[in-house]
Amino acid sequence: MIDLFAVRADTPGVEHGIHLNNAGAALMPRPVLDAMTGHLRREAEIGGYEAAGEAQRALDGVYASVANLLGARAEEIALTENATVAWQMAFYSFTFKPGDRILTARAEYAANYVAFLHAAKTHGVTIDVVPNDHNGVLDPEALESMIDDRVRLIAMTWVPTNGGLINPAAEVGRIARRHDVPYLLDACQAVGQMPVNVQQLGCDMLTAPGRKFLRGPRGTGFLYVRQSLLEHLHPPVIDHFAAPWVEPDRYELRADARRFETWENNYAARLGLGVAIDYALSLGLEHIEARCKSLGTLLRAELSRLPGVHVYDLGPTPAAIISFSIDGHEAETVRNILAEAGIHVSLSKASSTLLDAKARALPTLIRASPHYYNTEEEILALVERCRRLTS
Amino acid sequence: MIDLFAVRADTPGVEHGIHLNNAGAALMPRPVLDAMTGHLRREAEIGGYEAAGEAQRALDGVYASVANLLGARAEEIALTENATVAWQMAFYSFTFKPGDRILTARAEYAANYVAFLHAAKTHGVTIDVVPNDHNGVLDPEALESMIDDRVRLIAMTWVPTNGGLINPAAEVGRIARRHDVPYLLDACQAVGQMPVNVQQLGCDMLTAPGRKFLRGPRGTGFLYVRQSLLEHLHPPVIDHFAAPWVEPDRYELRADARRFETWENNYAARLGLGVAIDYALSLGLEHIEARCKSLGTLLRAELSRLPGVHVYDLGPTPAAIISFSIDGHEAETVRNILAEAGIHVSLSKASSTLLDAKARALPTLIRASPHYYNTEEEILALVERCRRLTS
Repeated sequence: MIDLFAVRADTPGVEHGIHLNNAGAALMPRPVLDAMTGHLRREAEIGGYEAAGEAQRALDGVYASVANLLGARAEEIALTENATVAWQMAFYSFTFKPGDRILTARAEYAANYVAFLHAAKTHGVTIDVVPNDHNGVLDPEALESMIDDRVRLIAMTWVPTNGGLINPAAEVGRIARRHDVPYLLDACQAVGQMPVNVQQLGCDMLTAPGRKFLRGPRGTGFLYVRQSLLEHLHPPVIDHFAAPWVEPDRYELRADARRFETWENNYAARLGLGVAIDYALSLGLEHIEARCKSLGTLLRAELSRLPGVHVYDLGPTPAAIISFSIDGHEAETVRNILAEAGIHVSLSKASSTLLDAKARALPTLIRASPHYYNTEEEILALVERCRRLTS
Repeated sequence: MIDLFAVRADTPGVEHGIHLNNAGAALMPRPVLDAMTGHLRREAEIGGYEAAGEAQRALDGVYASVANLLGARAEEIALTENATVAWQMAFYSFTFKPGDRILTARAEYAANYVAFLHAAKTHGVTIDVVPNDHNGVLDPEALESMIDDRVRLIAMTWVPTNGGLINPAAEVGRIARRHDVPYLLDACQAVGQMPVNVQQLGCDMLTAPGRKFLRGPRGTGFLYVRQSLLEHLHPPVIDHFAAPWVEPDRYELRADARRFETWENNYAARLGLGVAIDYALSLGLEHIEARCKSLGTLLRAELSRLPGVHVYDLGPTPAAIISFSIDGHEAETVRNILAEAGIHVSLSKASSTLLDAKARALPTLIRASPHYYNTEEEILALVERCRRLTS
């Protein structure tokens, strides 16, 4: 069970408004903030290299924290500037050839899809979108039926950006394993709101940011790459950290996943990420998931009851992301009205999940994403403010 | 003239030791620290997106600050995680073919050189190292004589990592312009200690970090790309910020240099970078250069007078980086002894400039890099501590 009083006491932001934009960037708990500001202060006092030296043990520990979070080994983890860079390092490591196929889901994130299109343009790959089943999630049977010798990669967003949909990541993993196809899982909106275990998922690569449900800093992310795949992937870009210069005409790629990193980093942000992960682990991801589900279900149910409010989340058991619209009001207007009332939500535009938006003729959506530290009262305050817009 | 009292009053770190590791990471002035910690605190209070929204004008202004620093236009600037990522985005945008030649300098930085080797392995390019002249800097005449139709790129580090050498960046620019060869200038150790103007330099691309002589945050960097070249460069990796997804089967690259960025960023670090640049501009880069030269010359002269101390800096008018060794003492031991005395310097290992290290049979070097806020007394304290090691 989450001690709501304790986690709210740890969260300076709850004094300042109702934060329901946790799928954008969650409120950082005080220990995360303190780790960062403390390290920055130390950098100003003794210098950036010297402060990193002092913090070496904690910095090394961030890899272990990510590994603990994912059920992986620290050597399989790279820390990156953000989740997109993590994903790019994985995706662009593949050397595609004409005719190769990439299988993906309908609600795939724009960042990933434009990279697919880039590979299509440059290497002649084909992008094949697996249809959804009657529940609105990726259909595993359809996926399996689409696999042939030309499928080089399955790349899917687990919990898309535009709603509560949870794609069947572990079922996809079992199919990927059965057919020995590399599987890249974008876990951006999943990590931090539910247990994530790469062994159970059967994914070969997984990417996530710190700033979302993990409550970590902006400008942080990580990449998991399974050891057995790692040694076959040459990063698309390298420096001398990824690949030390060992002879005038030769570099040697690092053996671990840090081959996907560069030498220089924002160490304050890394420390904040590590603290955020440890904080989530100490609460327990099962407990976090239960409360996220509970608050998400409450919000979805209450919004659905309002006349003129449309909720767009797909799937049988959606995550804590609720996307909706209100008849007669532009999403942006609603977002601004809510912000004036101290309630922070975000928008999801068609261009961020273009295929899904076209297939469902989605307008710009209002996206509310509660987290475990939100209260039922906060949820109902959002509902009440929306109700007043409908009447 | 620099008001030494004022700049030291702005620098919390001068109370904590003698910082002569400015080519590693300089001490941040208080306004830089405050900009970052203030923004992080605001993120914790109102959320990461909401805080970025509040700071939008300042964040936009960072591009103008970099542009002012370089004599460029804001549209020609990308902000990146670090200087290496900036350099990678530029370098890996070139589509090399077998037989293409890259011209570089002998003291080229390892990060860049392993990328050349990567291009040699993947695309069959040839790497040709331009010899130094009798002063020990890249020989412009030799460079010009080496240019032929196969030269696709001149890529050079202006002020290398392993000493005070200043390569003739503007002369190289004139040659590059004359022969219409793209010119990528790594200005890592130059920016922040001397005036830098991309028009005078004649470079097409320039990269630099925030943390070194600019006194900005770790984990920041930027890329300049000349507008006329920009439109011909497709970034090696893209997301939907670099290339919005406009139709299901089509993305559209941004027109400006931000095509080399990704969507998510560390905004606190960006704000710190902007403040650091404005701070340097307000002091005047000519004044900064004059004082850096003065302190560098003092340190180099005093160290050279010590028996058993060897100074390795090349070139007629070296920058504020002094690399040296002391007979009978490992560089690492000297670094640690100095650190115990509260004097921070760094090391330069052969592997970071392997060609130059082999050509000159360099040992691991002790690298001392003063900045304008250092005092003559601090310089002499380092010299005195070294003197005691020699006797």
